Amino acid sequence: MSTPAPAAPRSPTPLSPTPRTTVTRGRSRAVEDRAAMHALLQDALVAHLGVDVGDHPLVLPVAFAVDLDGPDRDGTLYVHGSVAARWLTRSEGATVCVTVTEVDGLVTARSAFHHSMNYRSVVVVGPARIVTDPAEKARALYLTVDHMVPGRAATLRPSTRKEVAATAVLAVPLHEASMKVRAEGPVDDEADVEAGTWGGHVPVVRRLGEAVSDPLTDAPVPADVLRRVAAGRASLGCGS
Amino acid sequence: MSTPAPAAPRSPTPLSPTPRTTVTRGRSRAVEDRAAMHALLQDALVAHLGVDVGDHPLVLPVAFAVDLDGPDRDGTLYVHGSVAARWLTRSEGATVCVTVTEVDGLVTARSAFHHSMNYRSVVVVGPARIVTDPAEKARALYLTVDHMVPGRAATLRPSTRKEVAATAVLAVPLHEASMKVRAEGPVDDEADVEAGTWGGHVPVVRRLGEAVSDPLTDAPVPADVLRRVAAGRASLGCGS
Repeated sequence: MSTPAPAAPRSPTPLSPTPRTTVTRGRSRAVEDRAAMHALLQDALVAHLGVDVGDHPLVLPVAFAVDLDGPDRDGTLYVHGSVAARWLTRSEGATVCVTVTEVDGLVTARSAFHHSMNYRSVVVVGPARIVTDPAEKARALYLTVDHMVPGRAATLRPSTRKEVAATAVLAVPLHEASMKVRAEGPVDDEADVEAGTWGGHVPVVRRLGEAVSDPLTDAPVPADVLRRVAAGRASLGCGS
Repeated sequence: MSTPAPAAPRSPTPLSPTPRTTVTRGRSRAVEDRAAMHALLQDALVAHLGVDVGDHPLVLPVAFAVDLDGPDRDGTLYVHGSVAARWLTRSEGATVCVTVTEVDGLVTARSAFHHSMNYRSVVVVGPARIVTDPAEKARALYLTVDHMVPGRAATLRPSTRKEVAATAVLAVPLHEASMKVRAEGPVDDEADVEAGTWGGHVPVVRRLGEAVSDPLTDAPVPADVLRRVAAGRASLGCGS
């Protein structure tokens, strides 16, 4: 597959630029840093896409990728699906919401009321565009594979025209977005602290297991997959 | 806090009972087993709630709990939030969508096109009801705590009236729901298999770390939290 284009100099807009993505609840947890958003989008494996399907919203888990080197100054989020998925192809021009969340801990407070979770979450709202250009679609597919296993796309055979045609890709600009982060212990009532009740938190991490080779292959596990497993263990606090 | 009521005999409806929750794409991945849905809802820590906020859907990560012992034959899903969250309180009577997803693996196929993920996902569509009865709200709060740490709610002081009043709870019946599961290696083109290219998958698991006590407490980590951490390591494949 072809190599993604090199990065162009850019000056992205700050997060929360519009009323509909301004965080109104829990303002102290809002993050106005695009680097933090990009890091979360790199860490997370799945996004939840919300589309209006007539009389109600539908929320579906989707594979995704982010392109920070394309023509959009703030970057583009690509959601990947089948051309046969009507909810996806019907979204052309509609405003959709894409939310990405990672749970980082259970906040086991001293009272039920103050129980919470540590998490990172990004909410992106924007106009959906069905990608029709074969080159852009192929690039989105390339980035989706590399999102799962960095460096892997370059090791695979190029996608065929038929494969690219059978793939639907929805593009959403990373312009209107907000991020919330909670990363601390419990915030308890003074009376519960003074009563000597225990409070704390429990970290939650994700771990990648050893790669399992398909029974039909005799080939060794490739280096890109081995690197991904090793990184997934170390960076996510497993293996210790 | 009071103990939840015992289970009543019930005969739940099968999954996918209506056109809007019938799986049309990837039918082979559909699961028509409520026990599998209940297991996923027990495993998962966060749900994604989709609500219509006027001109677009909004998708937000939420803590949740499931009550299989209440008056609703199929069970009730409770979403927990602040009374100050307008999107939540504005949902009364509206049809919402609650989606719960766990990623179980990266499917590292022999071609970009066949890359996929192993996952379990439940999509619930139904009318949202703001819970106003203080007893039902207190029970939903109890179940939300026990969802994070089984057995913990009974060890905490009862919630105060003020705390219950400051909590907004959205109830959605677990009636219209569909589940999809992918749990296998790559499904590759024969030519790619014959070419000897490697294909396989990488398991993804969640691990709970050791509990971190709040600096303001001298009390030992309680048994319910220790049990949760131990179960989170063993059942999720970590610690080996």
